[in-house]
Formats: sequence, structure tokens, C-alpha cells
Amino acid sequence: MTPREPELGEYESAAGTPAASSTAVEAPSDGAERAHVRFEPEGQEVRVPSGTPVFDAASWNGIAIDSTCGGHGTCKKCKVRVLEGELPISTVDPRAFSPEELSDGWRLACRAPARGELTIEVPPLQTRPKAALVGVGRHVILRPSVQKRHLVLEEPSLDDQRSDIQRVTDGLDDLEPRVELPVLRTLGKVLREANFDVTAVVCDDLLIDVEPGDTTARRFAMAFDLGTTTVVATLLDLETGQPMAVQSMLNRQQPFGADVISRVSATMLDEGALDALQARAQETLAQLTQEVCAEAGVDPGEVYEICICGNVTMTQMVLGMDPEPLSMAPFIVTTHEFPQLLAADLGVPVHARAPAFVFPSLGAYVGGDIVSGMLATGLTRDKRIRLFIDVGTNSEIALGNQDGVVATAAPAGPAFEAAQIRCGMRAAEGAIEGVALADDISLEVIGDIEPVGVCGSGLVDAVAELVRTGLLDHSGRFVDDEKAGEISPALAPRLTKIGEERVFVLSWKGDDPAASVYLTQRDIRELQFAKASIATGWKILFGELGMEPEEVSQVLLAGSFGQYLSPAAAVRIGLVPRIALPRIVSAGNVAGEGSKIAALSLRERAEAVSILNEVRYVELSGRSDFNDAFIDQLAFPG
Amino acid sequence: MTPREPELGEYESAAGTPAASSTAVEAPSDGAERAHVRFEPEGQEVRVPSGTPVFDAASWNGIAIDSTCGGHGTCKKCKVRVLEGELPISTVDPRAFSPEELSDGWRLACRAPARGELTIEVPPLQTRPKAALVGVGRHVILRPSVQKRHLVLEEPSLDDQRSDIQRVTDGLDDLEPRVELPVLRTLGKVLREANFDVTAVVCDDLLIDVEPGDTTARRFAMAFDLGTTTVVATLLDLETGQPMAVQSMLNRQQPFGADVISRVSATMLDEGALDALQARAQETLAQLTQEVCAEAGVDPGEVYEICICGNVTMTQMVLGMDPEPLSMAPFIVTTHEFPQLLAADLGVPVHARAPAFVFPSLGAYVGGDIVSGMLATGLTRDKRIRLFIDVGTNSEIALGNQDGVVATAAPAGPAFEAAQIRCGMRAAEGAIEGVALADDISLEVIGDIEPVGVCGSGLVDAVAELVRTGLLDHSGRFVDDEKAGEISPALAPRLTKIGEERVFVLSWKGDDPAASVYLTQRDIRELQFAKASIATGWKILFGELGMEPEEVSQVLLAGSFGQYLSPAAAVRIGLVPRIALPRIVSAGNVAGEGSKIAALSLRERAEAVSILNEVRYVELSGRSDFNDAFIDQLAFPG
Repeated sequence: MTPREPELGEYESAAGTPAASSTAVEAPSDGAERAHVRFEPEGQEVRVPSGTPVFDAASWNGIAIDSTCGGHGTCKKCKVRVLEGELPISTVDPRAFSPEELSDGWRLACRAPARGELTIEVPPLQTRPKAALVGVGRHVILRPSVQKRHLVLEEPSLDDQRSDIQRVTDGLDDLEPRVELPVLRTLGKVLREANFDVTAVVCDDLLIDVEPGDTTARRFAMAFDLGTTTVVATLLDLETGQPMAVQSMLNRQQPFGADVISRVSATMLDEGALDALQARAQETLAQLTQEVCAEAGVDPGEVYEICICGNVTMTQMVLGMDPEPLSMAPFIVTTHEFPQLLAADLGVPVHARAPAFVFPSLGAYVGGDIVSGMLATGLTRDKRIRLFIDVGTNSEIALGNQDGVVATAAPAGPAFEAAQIRCGMRAAEGAIEGVALADDISLEVIGDIEPVGVCGSGLVDAVAELVRTGLLDHSGRFVDDEKAGEISPALAPRLTKIGEERVFVLSWKGDDPAASVYLTQRDIRELQFAKASIATGWKILFGELGMEPEEVSQVLLAGSFGQYLSPAAAVRIGLVPRIALPRIVSAGNVAGEGSKIAALSLRERAEAVSILNEVRYVELSGRSDFNDAFIDQLAFPG
Repeated sequence: MTPREPELGEYESAAGTPAASSTAVEAPSDGAERAHVRFEPEGQEVRVPSGTPVFDAASWNGIAIDSTCGGHGTCKKCKVRVLEGELPISTVDPRAFSPEELSDGWRLACRAPARGELTIEVPPLQTRPKAALVGVGRHVILRPSVQKRHLVLEEPSLDDQRSDIQRVTDGLDDLEPRVELPVLRTLGKVLREANFDVTAVVCDDLLIDVEPGDTTARRFAMAFDLGTTTVVATLLDLETGQPMAVQSMLNRQQPFGADVISRVSATMLDEGALDALQARAQETLAQLTQEVCAEAGVDPGEVYEICICGNVTMTQMVLGMDPEPLSMAPFIVTTHEFPQLLAADLGVPVHARAPAFVFPSLGAYVGGDIVSGMLATGLTRDKRIRLFIDVGTNSEIALGNQDGVVATAAPAGPAFEAAQIRCGMRAAEGAIEGVALADDISLEVIGDIEPVGVCGSGLVDAVAELVRTGLLDHSGRFVDDEKAGEISPALAPRLTKIGEERVFVLSWKGDDPAASVYLTQRDIRELQFAKASIATGWKILFGELGMEPEEVSQVLLAGSFGQYLSPAAAVRIGLVPRIALPRIVSAGNVAGEGSKIAALSLRERAEAVSILNEVRYVELSGRSDFNDAFIDQLAFPG
């Protein structure tokens, strides 16, 4: 399974392109006042929360302003001129501009807070900014944390006894990085062996290496999506923003159980299990790293940073943090945000001092993978109200727009992974993944072979069709044989019994139902519980926003299961609100996309962290209205 | 060899006590304007550079103002009231005071810049501040980096799902520490096993541990003086500021050579030598740590921080930094300031996450040990012009006062360690350490036994006496036998020959001079070169300040050799300027004292770092006037 390229749906065409001025994506809001900024000469107009730096207002809307420092006020390249409105003079401005320029309205965009009505002139770029299309039609301007500077330094003399590190940092005129012990250990030797012709490697505010000669053309990062089942790694060229190689494999923690609960349980039964689980997750990341680097011909030492997202259990385990408090009420995470880490802390064998960015989490069951997905879909920036559902054993649900988002987690159980389904199987060769009922049954089977079982999307499809035809009533019970005969004489024989249990045969093997691929009444109940859990989640979230489900502009189905789900079937069984089908979008592996976005742009990464403040986590466990809502949602829609 | 208690000399009586208002120690200056601050109700008056926070102005002068956060503006305890003059309202003040209090003149002292003439009321302390007498009569107010807070936290619930780390940091109302991965790894378990009754251990801005129960009574630090020859470790109780145990031992690097040059040479000849030297230095620190902890009954895990000073070669070696560029022109250090390190980076087996403060260095041969000595002696704060000399193979020299200090290093060679002296030996049992010539010779011998050699102070004493009596002429030549007979018939027979070489016998063994303890003409030359090197150093420094040597107020003789040197002899041979003998003070192991001061006070530690900006390093190697000055200084004073 590899991350699919995102479909450029409604979101992209409406707002994702840089020149889409009239429908520009707007910045997240804390509910405060808005500034209106018009950028000349292109004429794009944007609305952002009052106080947003002009640089951010432009960047969030795909308008490129020069910068090499990532908005730290040090490179002094993000020069803009205010044509109408007021921009205060920051403490940095007098160092970048003459008094005449200041009075002409020149300011550094990264330090200029937008307020009220503004018209801003953006000078033509001196260097063409690079951008990449990532996520759900997101246009990401490249501003990676990893920067390189080729330095040809003067050799020291008795008249110039600057320390070795001072000589290097003096050469980095637009960066002021911190430095740590390991770089200092070898600095003297490296400088002298390279005749003071070196390349400084800076990650955010840290000098992580000084390499001999000019290595500026080579800089790479890795983006990981650390799933409970599948782990995906993408090697990114930071010069171009393009993926060089992608690989995925099963998480090596599988022997400890298929889902997070069984893996946490393992740590509670055995003192050594956490260490083993940590080691297996790290081995998985390490193997993928070796594979993508080998495939792309990149030395792992040229990979200077990693970004990783995962659910909270996966994240805490790979870092060796005790996951036990996650697994029982009141479901407490160790931390929402992670401190600055190294790739080595996650066992990833890239550059020894490569930092690791770990996506923050909203709650025990709305983790960094969902924050990453929100980043990739722009959920907290878009003006449309959108519903995001990552369908799985634990289903994460978020709802809202730039004015605020609420999120929750619904314990859907394993029905979508088909684990508790009698003839269930993973989405592998021989799995029924699509079902249509007419005069007869027609099946889509993975690999186009004889069916051997049914996977999650096949289950949803089958149930949706059974409901549509009336062979299942709205309470979720198979109709009796007489009714079935009335509905469809052709299909009625498939509704039969194995022992005392009513089943519907999807694919006969001979004429023995028990040898065939079928759905049981109990299977239907499993799916009902799962979809009711998810529907209860979004019902409560709509209630939190004071909205009706039908008012939603778009439903994004995320995750490896969500992308295979048929929108029609999802509506039919009540998994998603009843809206026009084109508004239900399969968003693909948005977690992996968000991880790549974070690797490509410091600014987007900061955005990911700010999502923590923009999204309100709603805990369902403690709610008195949960059970009533759940029972309401058990039935299939009429 | 253990660090001696400092003598409370002139400096202490004049300025070191908190109540010495009329002669209060003044703060370092950058040459800018001064503020005059009077502190009520005690009436102390101080002058500090304009803009110095009122808190610092008080603290530097031994006036205690309440504070628990170390001046970060977070504890809001350092409340003072301005009675006369103007103190602006800082951004923090409105959070600490009502508008009425603000208009009554209440301010937080840590955020209030002193300018012009001020009278400040300091409320009585709510808790008696602890202070310790350290260094050369220095009164150090305890403000260790290491702080502990006992927290009895509410247990989490569905209504209070704060993350574990948030719960802890919320409990630390006056501290906002960062946190790193290792603490997060075990946090969940520790909190739950301790029923949320824990003690947070914060070092400066870092949460380094969360311990079960109330451990606030136990917090310790280690101060190291990492000498080329001798390493000294002091275990400090941070509750009282008192040393719990002190131990010293020879640096285990000794087999690689007695001095820094031979040790650096070893690394140039053998690839593996740097690793070996690093390991041996770390073993030395580790053994001392185990010894002092055992002696004091302190668990090494209760030692939460270390401070260490040493010359640049020792410092770079113990950290594994290549020392080669230190050893040859243009003498380049890897770095002046060290990044935040861990005790573990120096192999010191205390708390696993204990930070290490490493004293910064001024230049390749004026290292952290000298910066530490400057801190301990208050060289950059005192108003008197003082000359600081750390006498050794490499002798460090500093000159100045609060208005500025210049410093240099003089390559004195090994004469003071008596290494190239024919009958030389280290200051051990049997070494002649004092010599007086009158009608006969009288010797002081370590251990009061038959002399077996002469150590550095004995050499200086002997030469000084030979010059005084005239048996050595001012050029450094032994007088002829006839002249010697005229000067002293009793001493003349001691001036004899071994082969062709003239010698002076200090202690006969039988009547064979070669079997006796004696000084050779060549020994005298060695000492002449050494003292001329040092005298050239301070002559040039006096020239840099436009002063004559006789104008100096005090000479501080530091280091293990300096403390045994007789002031009279030092003047006699021209090692120090010719000033009144009581003004020549043996300052003892000031490097070790400075290291202790840094362990006791964050503020003093910041002062140590600011010394880098207050002291100008003068490189002698490149100077055209060095050779002339050196030749001038070779002769003994007339």
C-alpha cells in the first residue's frame, strides 16, 4: 500500500491555487477581528485574523514573498511596501531600511502585523520560490527547516583569533544557529582538513553539521506515517519538494496484536513488552529508511531531518513512553506537544544529529496522524464547514472551518477491518471489495479471482445494497423469506441459514452456505455498532457547533479504509450525513501527506502546532447524551 | 592538595560584606552612564551601569530581594517600591500589581532598569535568604540553578484530561521549564505510582526529573577544578551553600605528559590518544565524584548539576574536542562559550540528566579556570586596579577593574614546577620550599626531613635571597669567589663548581657538591626566563591601560604555586611589581572557588559569562614589542 496522489477535488479548484484571489483560503481564526489585505500587483485579497504577520497572510494563500530565514526576522529579504493602511515599524525594520524607505512604507513582512484594511505591494521575487503540490490540493511553498550554506572562510591568523565556531557563524549572515557538543567535537579538524571551505547544515535554529566542501545541492528529509497496521516512508528532495522514493510495510509490532488496545495490554502484562514494542516500531522505521535511501541513491547521512505522525499510542510507544494511561479512563496522554527530538530518538538511521518533528496530539484518541490530516486538508483554514472522518477501529472525527474545529474519537470496533466479521479478511487478493445487487449480485474482487472473503469496503457496500433493496430492514434485521421472495426472487435464495443463524450468501461455493462467502446477522450488527459509533460522534459534534448535519459542505473520508469506501454506500448505511455524493470526497492517506508538508515547510509545521489551539477536543466517554444518541444512530437511515 | 579557605584580606574588609554601604562593590561597566541607587531601609548606596536591573544592582552588592525564579519575571516576588526617581512600568508589572500599587511606585525589581538617581524601598524578606562566603571574601547569595517543588496534584478525570506533563507544569506556578524526552518516558508511571504526590526537579529552565514523594530537602551539586596536574571536586549542599566534602587527586592524564603541550602532542602522534585522554580525564572526575558522595553520604542521583572550570586544553579534551589548533599559532579555540551540556557528557556519574556548566574561556591560554578565578576574586567588579597572576608553566595574567580588564598568557616554562631544575622536585616531602640567607643558610623543608630537592617556591626564595645578598648579580650571574668571600665568608664555600658549572649548594650531603641539593647557573637562567616572561606580560598589560606597574592597588597570586610564593621573594626577583608587601595577596585556588560560586548562584554564573565581554584578550605572540620588553625584564630588579 503506497500513499495515493491526492485527488484535486473541489477544495483545490476553489482555493488551492495561488492566484485564486476571490476564493482564497483564509487563515485560522481565534474568533478575533479580521484584517483585510490586498496584495499588489496581483490583486489577491485575503482575510486573516487581526495581528497575523503579513508574511503569513501571504504565505498561507500561496503568495510568495522572498525569505531565506523562515520568518525569523534575520534574513531581511521579505521586504514589502504598504500602499494603503497602517503597518507599525518593528524593532527589526530600522536595521533593514533607511529612514526614507521606512517613511515610504517599506517593512519586513515577517514582523508586520496585519490589522484593518491594508494594501501591500509585494516586489517581484529575486529567486523563484519553489512550491510543491501536497496534501488535498495544497500548494506548499518550500521552506524546509534544513538549510545549507557553502562557506569559504578566511583562515585564522594572530590578527584574527576568532574561535572556530565564531568563524562559521559569522559566515552565516542570515542565520544565527545554536550549536551542540557533537559538532564542536570535530569542527577544528573538519575546518582545517577542508582548508576552511565547508558547508554548514542548519536545521531550524541548530547547526547540525559542518561538511567539507560544497554539498549544498544535496539535502533530503524523510516523512513517516506510523500507522498501527501500515507504516509509510517518503524520501523528499528538499531542493525540489519532490518525493524521491516511497515505501510501506506492515508495522513490526503486529505480533503484539492488530490494534492499539491489544498492544497496550501487552505492556501491562509484561514489563519488557514496551521495550520490545519500541524496538519493533523503530526497526520498522529503520528498514523503510534503508529501502527508500537505497532506491533513490541517497546516502542516509544526507537525510537531515525526519517528520513523523501517528496515533498517540504508536507515537508514545516508538518514543518509549508508557502508554498505559492512554488505555483506560480518563485517557491521559503524557504530553500533547513533543520536545525537540532527534531522528536517533526514534531509531531512524539518518544523519546522526538530524532532528525529528513529531506531530502533536489533541487527545488520547485524536493523535498526531489526525493533526497531520487536518494540516493536509486545510480543515482549520478553509471557510467551508467540513466533516473529516478517519474510519477505523478507532475513528477520529473533526468538524468545522477557519472559525473553529471540534474533534472527537469514536470507538468503532474492528468491523471496518473486518476482523470480527465471520468471512472477513483484510483488503488483500480474493477479498470482495464491492457489491451491487440487481437482478443478481455482482461483485468486485481484489485480484479478480474467486472470492475468499469480504473486506471492510465490501461489507459496507453489501450492507448498503441490502438496505437499499429492502432485504435488510432499517432496524438491521434480515427480512423473512416471504418478504425476500417478494423483493427479489433471484436474490431470495441467498438469504438462508447456517444452523440457527440467518446469513446472506455473497458468493456460493457449491450449494453449502457454510463453505461460501456470506454475511451473518451478527456481522450486520457489528457494522451497525461501528457506524452508529461514528455517526454518534459527528452528531454530537454538529450539536456542539449548533448545526444540522445536512448543512455540511464537504465530507472528507480519510485513512486507508476511507479511501476505498463508496460514498453512496456510506450515505446509505448512515456512516456519513445525507448530502450530495460529489460532496463526499475520498481524501486518501492525508496523515502521510501532512507529514510530507511538515518536512517541506517550517511554516506549515508551525501551523500544525497551532492546530492544537484551534481545535477543541470533545471527550465522548463522559457525556450523558452519548447513549441516547448512539441508540438513535443504530438504525439504518430511512 | 585541597582548596584552602580564602584569606579575608583587604578586599573583604573593604567591600565584601553586605552592609559595607560606603564602599560597596560596584557592578561591571561597559563605559556607559551610571545609575546611583540607594536601598532603604538599610541605606546602602550603589553605583551601577545605567540600565542594570534593580534586582541585579541589589544582588551584586549583597542586598537580598525576595525571588524564587532567579530573575525571570515569573515568580513576581521581587517587589520593590521606588521612593525617589523614576522606574518605568514593565510588561510584567501590571500582572503583579494593582493600578494603585503601580502608581504608588511598586515594581518588580528584576524587570526595572536603574537609571539616574533612585531611592528604592526593599520590603523585609519573607524568607531569610541564604548566603555563603566563597571565593576571595565574596558574599554569594544562594540562587542555585537547581530548584525543587513538592507537588500534590489532583488526579486526572474525564473532566480534567490535562496531559501528565501539563499537570506537572501547572503545579509549578513560578517556573515554566522545558521538558525533554527522558522525563516524559517515565512520567506516567511515576505520577501514578506516587499517587500524584511528587517533587519536580528543575535546573534553570529544564525539568530534569519528577521524583516520587517529597524530596525537597535533598539537593546537591558538584564543583570541579580540572587542573592539568590536580583535579579538585567539592560536593555542595544547595540548601545551605556549604561544602559537604572535598577531594583532590592527580589528573589521570599524567602518563601522557606533565603539561598541556605534551598532552596535545600525544593526540597529534596517535589517532587514539584523544579518546584515551578524554577517558582518563572523565575517569578522574568520576572517581572524585564517587569519593565525595561516599564521604558525605549523598546518593549520586541527588547531585543535579555540576560546574567545572579548567584551562582550554583540559576542557576541550574532557569534552572530546580536538585540541590541536590550541597548540600552534594562531592558537584557535573551538569555542569560547560551551552549549548546555550534561554531566554525562563529561562522564560524571551523578543524576543522569544533570546539566553541566562549563566555564567559558577568553583565549587558547586564558581559559575557564582564569574566568572562574576572576569571578571568585571579583576582578571585573572591584573599583581598585588589581593584577591577577596565576603562576605556572603557562601563566595567566589579568589587570584592571570594573572599568575594564585586559588579560594575556605568558609561556613561563616549567621552572615554577621545578621540572627543568637540576635538583628540582614537586612540592612533596623533602622539598626545600623556603630559603633564608644570613650568616648561614636556613631552610624550610616540607615534612621537616633531610632535604632531597628544591620545589618552585624554594627556588624563587633561594634566588631572591641570592640576589638580596649580592651573591647573584642583577644580570643573574653568580659573583666570582673573591666577591663572594667579601659578601659572606660563611656562605662563600657554598658557591662552588660541579665540573665546569658554577653551583650554589643549598644543603650539603657530605662534602661532594654533586651529591648535595644545589642550584646551577642554568637553573637561575631558567627562572630568569620564567619570571621575565610573566613580567613582560604584565608590563604590556599596564601599557595597554596606560598605567605604571607601581600604581596597582593589589596583586593576587593565584593557583597552587602562587599560594606558596613569598611576596617578598616575588618582588625581589621581579616576578611582581614593586609595591608594599601587604598588597601582594596569596589568593589560593580561586579557580575552584569560582566553580563553587557558579554552582551556588545562577546570577553569578551569568556574571562569569559576561566576563567574556568585559575582558579584552591581548595576544603576546604577534607583538613586535614583546622581545624588547622581554629582554628588559630578564635582569633582576636593582
